[in-house]
Amino acid sequence: MAHVAIVGAGVMGTALAWPLSDNGHRISLVGTPLDREIIDEARSRHRHPKLGRELPPGVTAYHTEELAAAIEDADLIVSGVNSWGVDWIADALAESLKRGRDVIGVTKGFRSDDAGEIEIFPRVLAGQAPASIREHSNFMAVGGPCIAGELAGRRQSCVVFAAEEKEAAERVARLFRTGYYHIWPSADLWGLELAVALKNAYVLGVGMANGMLEAAGGADHAGAVMHNPAAATFAQALYEMEQILTALNGTPAHAHGLPGAGDQYVTAMGGRTLRLGTLIGRGYRYSQAREMMAGETLETVAIIESMSRVYPRLRKQGVLRDDELPLIETLIAAITRDEVVTLPWERYFASM
Amino acid sequence: MAHVAIVGAGVMGTALAWPLSDNGHRISLVGTPLDREIIDEARSRHRHPKLGRELPPGVTAYHTEELAAAIEDADLIVSGVNSWGVDWIADALAESLKRGRDVIGVTKGFRSDDAGEIEIFPRVLAGQAPASIREHSNFMAVGGPCIAGELAGRRQSCVVFAAEEKEAAERVARLFRTGYYHIWPSADLWGLELAVALKNAYVLGVGMANGMLEAAGGADHAGAVMHNPAAATFAQALYEMEQILTALNGTPAHAHGLPGAGDQYVTAMGGRTLRLGTLIGRGYRYSQAREMMAGETLETVAIIESMSRVYPRLRKQGVLRDDELPLIETLIAAITRDEVVTLPWERYFASM
Repeated sequence: MAHVAIVGAGVMGTALAWPLSDNGHRISLVGTPLDREIIDEARSRHRHPKLGRELPPGVTAYHTEELAAAIEDADLIVSGVNSWGVDWIADALAESLKRGRDVIGVTKGFRSDDAGEIEIFPRVLAGQAPASIREHSNFMAVGGPCIAGELAGRRQSCVVFAAEEKEAAERVARLFRTGYYHIWPSADLWGLELAVALKNAYVLGVGMANGMLEAAGGADHAGAVMHNPAAATFAQALYEMEQILTALNGTPAHAHGLPGAGDQYVTAMGGRTLRLGTLIGRGYRYSQAREMMAGETLETVAIIESMSRVYPRLRKQGVLRDDELPLIETLIAAITRDEVVTLPWERYFASM
Repeated sequence: MAHVAIVGAGVMGTALAWPLSDNGHRISLVGTPLDREIIDEARSRHRHPKLGRELPPGVTAYHTEELAAAIEDADLIVSGVNSWGVDWIADALAESLKRGRDVIGVTKGFRSDDAGEIEIFPRVLAGQAPASIREHSNFMAVGGPCIAGELAGRRQSCVVFAAEEKEAAERVARLFRTGYYHIWPSADLWGLELAVALKNAYVLGVGMANGMLEAAGGADHAGAVMHNPAAATFAQALYEMEQILTALNGTPAHAHGLPGAGDQYVTAMGGRTLRLGTLIGRGYRYSQAREMMAGETLETVAIIESMSRVYPRLRKQGVLRDDELPLIETLIAAITRDEVVTLPWERYFASM
């Protein structure tokens, strides 16, 4: 039996409590400063308001100021924050990391600096640990098609746990594996983080097909909707993702495995990214769509902004061919230049 | 301006009349013996009953007994039959093929003999032409995510036209290309036909996740459905398809391009294959599900039956690794041995 501390009480981090609990582990669920209401309800009613479920046995909830004590003897830390919480958690865990600790994160992927150099989130955390400790700690990530509410509902879910050494990923996977939570270990942490982030960017494009349908007034008199354009964009996304992974030395197969195609499929079934894409596909500028979705966290925007710096860098270095990535170009134009955009069919599959 | 004869007045063959008509071509739509009612309505009301639409300008409809005269001076023949109509159309076109003719088919893929040797449908047609003619004719195929009703509704659609020579595919593509119908030419006719058929087989697996949801009584109290299992199966399907394409010397990238992932996405949005999969996922045997869907054409069944002969042959030849294709094994067990099956999560992604 292990003690696992989940830091960040959003839906995805918290959902990991179910397989852990079913395996008999002890779980400390620690809120960020933004999670006060969630932790209050977890304490008073043993319930997670956003998941709409009673928490499983073995979960104890802590407010953010109790973090140090709550994670003191944890065998493993789960980072449950989103892209905007990465610096906060890196600071919050700094003391703990100095004593060595395995950390696995559910945050989607990476960010980039002004020069377009990529930093994947597990490395941001690792950066807080002294070099002497870093060798004994593992900074890992989860990727794959896993809607949090389904995992918490014990629906069959298949994911990848990646670390820089496959054995470390496998060791941690053993804490989580159940009859409904299936885990493949991978040594390509870098490629996994790229894929899980990129698929989130690309679903914006798939959503644009929905928006085109709305702009056209919905199904026509014979019932035709727009699955064809969504599907073509889905395939173009995989095509571009594979090229970006190749250019960045990630495993190209992630593009059409669980972290790429699988997660892209599930993300295209609904949610915020799809809704933002729908608004942009209807013809709204991002600045307008952003207002219509005020208050919602949109990780796809952070990823596309990062790609707006990474993409020119890769082209300058000559590792991406010209005109091969019209979809990401379109998404960058929509998000960072606030342009009205349409899907660039004619430029899809340039090298086919 | 060309004269194109579409033989077989089902929804997909007929839908190709829209881009042809928009490009100003003359179209002869010729029914099979099963298409009498469709042709009657096309003649009396210039309308296609199953598409629910008025036919576009330039289309003349003919009953099956008028075939020879209708296609006499056609520049191109479109084969619009399904898997069960391939022998019929090969016979029907035999005379015409003796005089040389380009033919492009929308039929999904291939069939196999008792020894598990594959025959793709364009070759079945080519087999009817004398060798001297065959060199001057091109036998081609269409693949990619294209719901017929959407193409007829002029929705944006992206497909691949494949021939044994890319130039031939490109030449024919020029007749069809419009602002909404985007066509990529390919020289891998063999691989395209494998992919378009296989994706149809695999959507049965994706449908099984729907059936599991129904068996569980639908969404649970917190609203969790089963997109996670569908998405994992979607990714496993691409993984298996890529291996089968590799083993059979087809372009592996078709598995995650338009003919594979793209078409699989659109097929998973609804339709007969998905419904059959849903019934099997609910726990029905194929024989029961078959009765519940009496009268419906199920091409996925023909493809899985073919694969039940191809798969053992490939394993015997050692070109497929053991245990790498649990999903197709499961589908074969369901369809050809009438077994009650569940999705084999534990065996997914064996070599990952």
